[in-house]
Amino acid sequence: MLKIAIDVMGADNGVAPIVEGVIQALKTRDFHAIIVGDEKQIAPLIPSSVANRVEIVHCADYIKMEESASSANKRSETSIYKAVELVKNGEADAVVSPGHSGATMSLATLKIGRIKGVSRPAICTTMPNTTDKPSIILDAGANTDCKPEYLVDFAIMGYEYAKNVVNLENPRVGLLSNGEEDNKGNELTKATFKLLQKFPFFKGNVEGRDIFNGSVDVIVCDGFSGNLVLKASEGVASAISSVLKKEIKSCICSMFGALFLRGVFKRLKKKMDHSEYGGAPLLGVQKVVIISHGSSNARAIECAIYQALHAIESDICVKLTNAFANKPQDEN
Amino acid sequence: MLKIAIDVMGADNGVAPIVEGVIQALKTRDFHAIIVGDEKQIAPLIPSSVANRVEIVHCADYIKMEESASSANKRSETSIYKAVELVKNGEADAVVSPGHSGATMSLATLKIGRIKGVSRPAICTTMPNTTDKPSIILDAGANTDCKPEYLVDFAIMGYEYAKNVVNLENPRVGLLSNGEEDNKGNELTKATFKLLQKFPFFKGNVEGRDIFNGSVDVIVCDGFSGNLVLKASEGVASAISSVLKKEIKSCICSMFGALFLRGVFKRLKKKMDHSEYGGAPLLGVQKVVIISHGSSNARAIECAIYQALHAIESDICVKLTNAFANKPQDEN
Repeated sequence: MLKIAIDVMGADNGVAPIVEGVIQALKTRDFHAIIVGDEKQIAPLIPSSVANRVEIVHCADYIKMEESASSANKRSETSIYKAVELVKNGEADAVVSPGHSGATMSLATLKIGRIKGVSRPAICTTMPNTTDKPSIILDAGANTDCKPEYLVDFAIMGYEYAKNVVNLENPRVGLLSNGEEDNKGNELTKATFKLLQKFPFFKGNVEGRDIFNGSVDVIVCDGFSGNLVLKASEGVASAISSVLKKEIKSCICSMFGALFLRGVFKRLKKKMDHSEYGGAPLLGVQKVVIISHGSSNARAIECAIYQALHAIESDICVKLTNAFANKPQDEN
Repeated sequence: MLKIAIDVMGADNGVAPIVEGVIQALKTRDFHAIIVGDEKQIAPLIPSSVANRVEIVHCADYIKMEESASSANKRSETSIYKAVELVKNGEADAVVSPGHSGATMSLATLKIGRIKGVSRPAICTTMPNTTDKPSIILDAGANTDCKPEYLVDFAIMGYEYAKNVVNLENPRVGLLSNGEEDNKGNELTKATFKLLQKFPFFKGNVEGRDIFNGSVDVIVCDGFSGNLVLKASEGVASAISSVLKKEIKSCICSMFGALFLRGVFKRLKKKMDHSEYGGAPLLGVQKVVIISHGSSNARAIECAIYQALHAIESDICVKLTNAFANKPQDEN
């Protein structure tokens, strides 16, 4: 039975919603949960119906959001350190953490190790768009300053993830730029464009709006740009929702109309809701690592666990290892 | 009477909507329009009621969107060349162009000239947010690769524009980054952060979502990042609108409800509509230059003209000249 380690400490709203998500996942899928965190807080939350598939690894210390990630490797008594070590030692098959993402990335890279040939691991995020399949964006924030070779590795990883985990037949990969024309871009993307041209999956430059229209399946960018566009997008969606609510409440007639649209708004919300996508895998390390939002609710954690199970079952780490073993080399 | 030169060639949908926007503006405000473009196409569109305040400068050649901006300075028979020259020679007070933006920027910088002390002119865009005042973002695309000193100049220009043109009392300026903490950022923004700390208007790092919540008034970024976040934001808004329409149409009951919400959707659309904001001024050149979307409709051009008039009346170029004359110098 697959074993998933879940670091339940350090999330924005405490232990309870994270443990609740684990329980929901246990009720739905057959796996073993190793919950890493404060036993006193966790134990009372576990119902007897799933208790035989839960192991608690006690650990009260954790890395706070405002702390620096740089000390993570020295603090062996923290929950994320222990959770990552379980995976490193083969006691767990994957780790899910809504805690300090910098610490998770740093520990995963240092202790579990990079896949041979991967210059930098990247956070791979899925976003809803107007089609049935989500858009895959990487790097969503692991590497603020990138070299062209990093972006090439992100493209290979995104392609393999889209093909093997999201099950797209021929994933199309685009490079995020300030225009679709081949000559658009900044110094980084122009140099990357040249390197990517030898890959058949590469469809050229795409723009910010292409994240949401499904014109490509995978969008490659540096982690700084990825963070900017994802947060701006969340900002727009939340601004529209807040203006809409205010406008509807301003008149009894609109409130009446909105009643008939409850189903529509609910489906829209579900489509746009991050929780349904779980977390974001850190691609490029030798085991499955899922980074969840600090503000994850139970549903987001539940989905992140499904995502981890699916990633393990689709053997993504082996697929990535093979892809990098066969990576086309630069001529120079 | 103020004179505005309008380049009506080279927009996505031809001459007609651009000329229509000029006529609308002429009917509302008292100014003189110098329309630069193909006289045969323009003359029949001008009604006699405004003809005494319209001058047509004939010119059939223009720089096509797919052409490179690099040759703009040599092609003296193009509409944008002539329009910029009118401003340069003092025959017009400002220029508005929905044509090739690269050519407009390059000609404006070369011929009209930079304000002393400005390292690079920047495109300054206004975006709606959840407050009553818009967010001001620069650079929205003029400079793909920036140095920290450029971003400092953008901050000064954005502050002066917010204060003198948008009439905000104490504009707050933020630096677009991948987190709000002082230590967040890429190499460029970290170096910029240090330089901006001496300016009292600087409120620190902001994130993509802050563009839409009004937490600061002016958001500074390099032109590549600015383009990415603005296009991603447009993409989200358009995706939400398209999913909403599809969902509403899927059920008669929702269609009935939507009838009662027509006013709400209309006001939301108007709030989110780019047209109402006109174009984007190119700040840092010695005269008022407004760059409009190639896809501008008549309303967008009309608003861009009001924007040009308001920018001239608020004496923004003199204000910028003074601000740069008094710019705090670096110690080293």
